[in-house]
Amino acid sequence: MIKTNNSPHARWQALPPASMILSSGMWSQRQAINRQISLRHGYKMLESVGNFHNLRLAAGRVEGKYRGPLYMDSDLYKWLEAVAWEIANNPDDELQRILDESVDLIEAAQTPEGYLNTFYQIAEPERRWVNLKDGHELYCFGHLTHAAVAHHRVTGDGRLLNVARRFADYIDSIFGSGKRAVTDGHPESEMALIELYRETGEQRYLDLALFILEQRGHNLLGANHNASYYQDRVPIKQSTVVEGHAVRALYLASGVTDAYLETGDEAWLKTVQAQWHDFTSGKLFITGGAGSRHDGESFGQPYELPNDRCYCETCAAIASILWNWRMLLTTGEGRFADLIERTLYNGFLSGVSLDGRGFFYVNPLMSRGGYTRPEWHGCACCPPNVMRMLSSITHYFATDDDSGIQIHQYAPGALKAGEISLRIETDFPWQGIVRFTVDESPAAAWALKLRIPGWSAFTTLRINNENVDLSAAHQGYVTIERAWKPGDTIEIDFTISPRLTEAHPRIDPTRGSLAIERGPLVYCLEQIDNPTDIADIEIKESAPLEIEWQPDLMGGTMFIKTEAYAIDVSDWDGALYRTSGKYDVKKQPVQLVAVPYQLWSNRDSGAMRVWIPRAK
Amino acid sequence: MIKTNNSPHARWQALPPASMILSSGMWSQRQAINRQISLRHGYKMLESVGNFHNLRLAAGRVEGKYRGPLYMDSDLYKWLEAVAWEIANNPDDELQRILDESVDLIEAAQTPEGYLNTFYQIAEPERRWVNLKDGHELYCFGHLTHAAVAHHRVTGDGRLLNVARRFADYIDSIFGSGKRAVTDGHPESEMALIELYRETGEQRYLDLALFILEQRGHNLLGANHNASYYQDRVPIKQSTVVEGHAVRALYLASGVTDAYLETGDEAWLKTVQAQWHDFTSGKLFITGGAGSRHDGESFGQPYELPNDRCYCETCAAIASILWNWRMLLTTGEGRFADLIERTLYNGFLSGVSLDGRGFFYVNPLMSRGGYTRPEWHGCACCPPNVMRMLSSITHYFATDDDSGIQIHQYAPGALKAGEISLRIETDFPWQGIVRFTVDESPAAAWALKLRIPGWSAFTTLRINNENVDLSAAHQGYVTIERAWKPGDTIEIDFTISPRLTEAHPRIDPTRGSLAIERGPLVYCLEQIDNPTDIADIEIKESAPLEIEWQPDLMGGTMFIKTEAYAIDVSDWDGALYRTSGKYDVKKQPVQLVAVPYQLWSNRDSGAMRVWIPRAK
Repeated sequence: MIKTNNSPHARWQALPPASMILSSGMWSQRQAINRQISLRHGYKMLESVGNFHNLRLAAGRVEGKYRGPLYMDSDLYKWLEAVAWEIANNPDDELQRILDESVDLIEAAQTPEGYLNTFYQIAEPERRWVNLKDGHELYCFGHLTHAAVAHHRVTGDGRLLNVARRFADYIDSIFGSGKRAVTDGHPESEMALIELYRETGEQRYLDLALFILEQRGHNLLGANHNASYYQDRVPIKQSTVVEGHAVRALYLASGVTDAYLETGDEAWLKTVQAQWHDFTSGKLFITGGAGSRHDGESFGQPYELPNDRCYCETCAAIASILWNWRMLLTTGEGRFADLIERTLYNGFLSGVSLDGRGFFYVNPLMSRGGYTRPEWHGCACCPPNVMRMLSSITHYFATDDDSGIQIHQYAPGALKAGEISLRIETDFPWQGIVRFTVDESPAAAWALKLRIPGWSAFTTLRINNENVDLSAAHQGYVTIERAWKPGDTIEIDFTISPRLTEAHPRIDPTRGSLAIERGPLVYCLEQIDNPTDIADIEIKESAPLEIEWQPDLMGGTMFIKTEAYAIDVSDWDGALYRTSGKYDVKKQPVQLVAVPYQLWSNRDSGAMRVWIPRAK
Repeated sequence: MIKTNNSPHARWQALPPASMILSSGMWSQRQAINRQISLRHGYKMLESVGNFHNLRLAAGRVEGKYRGPLYMDSDLYKWLEAVAWEIANNPDDELQRILDESVDLIEAAQTPEGYLNTFYQIAEPERRWVNLKDGHELYCFGHLTHAAVAHHRVTGDGRLLNVARRFADYIDSIFGSGKRAVTDGHPESEMALIELYRETGEQRYLDLALFILEQRGHNLLGANHNASYYQDRVPIKQSTVVEGHAVRALYLASGVTDAYLETGDEAWLKTVQAQWHDFTSGKLFITGGAGSRHDGESFGQPYELPNDRCYCETCAAIASILWNWRMLLTTGEGRFADLIERTLYNGFLSGVSLDGRGFFYVNPLMSRGGYTRPEWHGCACCPPNVMRMLSSITHYFATDDDSGIQIHQYAPGALKAGEISLRIETDFPWQGIVRFTVDESPAAAWALKLRIPGWSAFTTLRINNENVDLSAAHQGYVTIERAWKPGDTIEIDFTISPRLTEAHPRIDPTRGSLAIERGPLVYCLEQIDNPTDIADIEIKESAPLEIEWQPDLMGGTMFIKTEAYAIDVSDWDGALYRTSGKYDVKKQPVQLVAVPYQLWSNRDSGAMRVWIPRAK
């Protein structure tokens, strides 16, 4: 969660923690599982794989060797951030105790001069600040800082914030203009320093963030490295593309957008606008996933969007949400909220199992089977990242400004922003109707902005049961300004009938194929629901798409069924290539059953595919 | 070149060096460039990047540090093997001198006990035989042995063969049954030891090869490695798939087939037959290329065959040829010669530039531009591998057995096998007619077998201008047994009109697309020949495919032209996904110009694609 109240170039203001409390529905269920299961599971894993152990070593409380990869601290900090945000949603004694103990431990682990990185304190003390390319020191600092800001914002307790400040002050004493030049192989600290600036008002933190951003692209990471991988090919202000490691690229873009929000330097904005165009016009998966290659966990070339070997790291989906959120706050354009929605409901949510104990690192759009969510990872960046996103999910649902309130994502619950309270009732995303009731309102007129998602072909709006004209909707939002009174109702109704989506013809692996979508949800075929091999199913485009509510399955979900064909491929007889036009395709009608992509691999590990060949 | 005269389970016998001398045509041109340019270029590169330097260090002739990656010796040995085979084709004083000097140096570098590996002699003497997983010690031994066998077979000089024998004896003194168990992370020594056995008759070399093969799949390479990558997941006799690093997998399969050729152990044959089915029914590119992933330079899952991010390493194409050659000699089935032909003319030959100074490591089926052949590589396995394949290319063209001669590949030149001499005239692969004239023949009847390629829809045969019935052709070969007389002519005529090829519908990136082929050649579009963006071209399946001989371009080549459409994608307007059925596709007729895939990226580095979407 970020705070843009004092950001001079933010069009809208992010709301403080607990501004929206969910009452029911998909996000509420996921948040409950996150609270009841995942955060506890994460605690146990961080204990068992050594993250806490490393801190105890640094604090001098135990003896032994450092365990795990060098960025272990960051996993713990992300989990801690998740715990802090969750406490804002639901005060919880056990989580509060865990949080307090963790803060004690982190305080104890910090060196007197302010440094804090257990790997470099224990395993390689002589290598502090030596390997900025791969050492993740500023990256770990960044996640510490995000946790510290969360802790302070939620609890008012300044202890962890002071740890982060001491570390930031120490970094600032070494690096900066007139001191040592620096950038970090894994962007993250830029966002963090700017948030620390927002939380503390300390200008030096903003200056240091800007300094780190400006150093990028000047070969500070070493002459022989893969510059694109590290987003170090050109200075940021000359960059026009998203490239290299997807999570790093998108964290960096988030930091650059933060820099614009605080400075108004148009060059930052121009860069992220160009990068966003490059991302969405050539490198974005329909699920909101980012990253086309396993090799380097990286973006590919434009239109290089494989279904089976895409990377679509869960962390990259989260990074995209962080970036698009900042772009939305900057511009007020609904396309950024549209992409947040697409990513949240699909490529992000697929990253965690329904039981809250399994996590995908890679989120492919097609599996030939055998793909499951492990309970933790050797590089465990994704699980705690999922946790912090889920515990702060409502942060992305609404904003305010002097004119009123903006609603970006739809979920049932209660929203409070200043003197305004709204009650929201909806079965979204299963149904397209959202009803708002004004519970409290100031006397003066104010404007309610509601996002009209790009996928809603036709939208209607009723205020106190009277139809309202939507023709003035602008950049994805309809604005209703009036003197609202308690009891006023607003009902917006989106077209949520299932639809078939095609992909740009330059994308090879989706050619001649269709995806099923409904509202914000991308659907997929899972083998378990389909009696014939889903590798050989073709969809009949002209057939109706029928929805079927399954109340008992996967917490309640909407199936989509339609007519399709099962192709008989037996006449290929072990060949992969043959002269065209010599064979008749044999096929028989079948019913196709599709489920939301976010839910795949929760029942078994059978085959899955999003894109379905279109019957000729 | 292998020797199967004494291999009890070889159906056909490979012919000795210089049995066939090319007179003109594509292979003759490529062989001349290899001789005149590439082998000299290779010599210079091996000098400049340090391969010779390392040998001189080991020989105590210079002082300094080891240079390059740890498998540097193997590049030099492959190049040396290429020089030896080339001398058999064309005696050449300069190449002979280089060869002699190199043999002197290698002799001097060998340790008294017989060990020879400059990396472990110079850089890490204490690590000899420690890191069999990645150390490439047996791999380098294997390439030394292949060079030694070539040198001995061509020149009769036993010096290098003795180096290889001493090394083999030393290895045999350490490893083997009752001694230390061993396998190597990079298969190669299996083939080499069996060839050394064939050359020397020393049974211990065969036994050692079999021992090394049997040790695979028993976790000798370490518990935590990626077993599939190293083909160490299961014992070879339990393997049914090609998996992991493609070059390693195919070198290993070659060695396993060699093991069958010598032992007749059906379990080896069963393994390679299953692996061949897995390869050709799910993991083979239309170019003959192998290896779907950059990640691990490896095979992917069945039907995972991306156009842009395939690996198709030049060495993997070569490895596939080596394997299929052994399968052909084992079985006498034309499908193996068909695949050799497909690979030679496409995925192998694309690996080297027309000027003989540039080498692809990766051979994609689609480039968005900017892809060129470097003059050498940091890991320089491919360039000398291309050289040894080109200098020994005619080895794959014919065999003999007690009944006569078998012709597998067609090229103009003179073939001599025992008492039989044939003259071969053809413009193949540009034209489909091949004429054989018997120059010498024993008096007794013998059988001429001619391969009928799988792509030839209709084939005719004339002997002394009389039509011969082909209905008895079997397993890809027609057999004509008679008492041949000097002056007899045999004319075989293949259907070589261009054809359109489709791919298995389970392959995502080729769905709805067609490839143009003619005879053994796969064609591609290069941007330079096509005025509209080739990313947006759709082929009109019903239109005629016209050929056009271009005598002055790229040494003379056949273009193929046909009707196509250029699609207007401007209405996508920066989007990648949109609701289907709402837009009319705007397109205009264009002429499409295709060139042989083997020749791509010889004029500029513009975009290229093999698979062309089919116009609806």
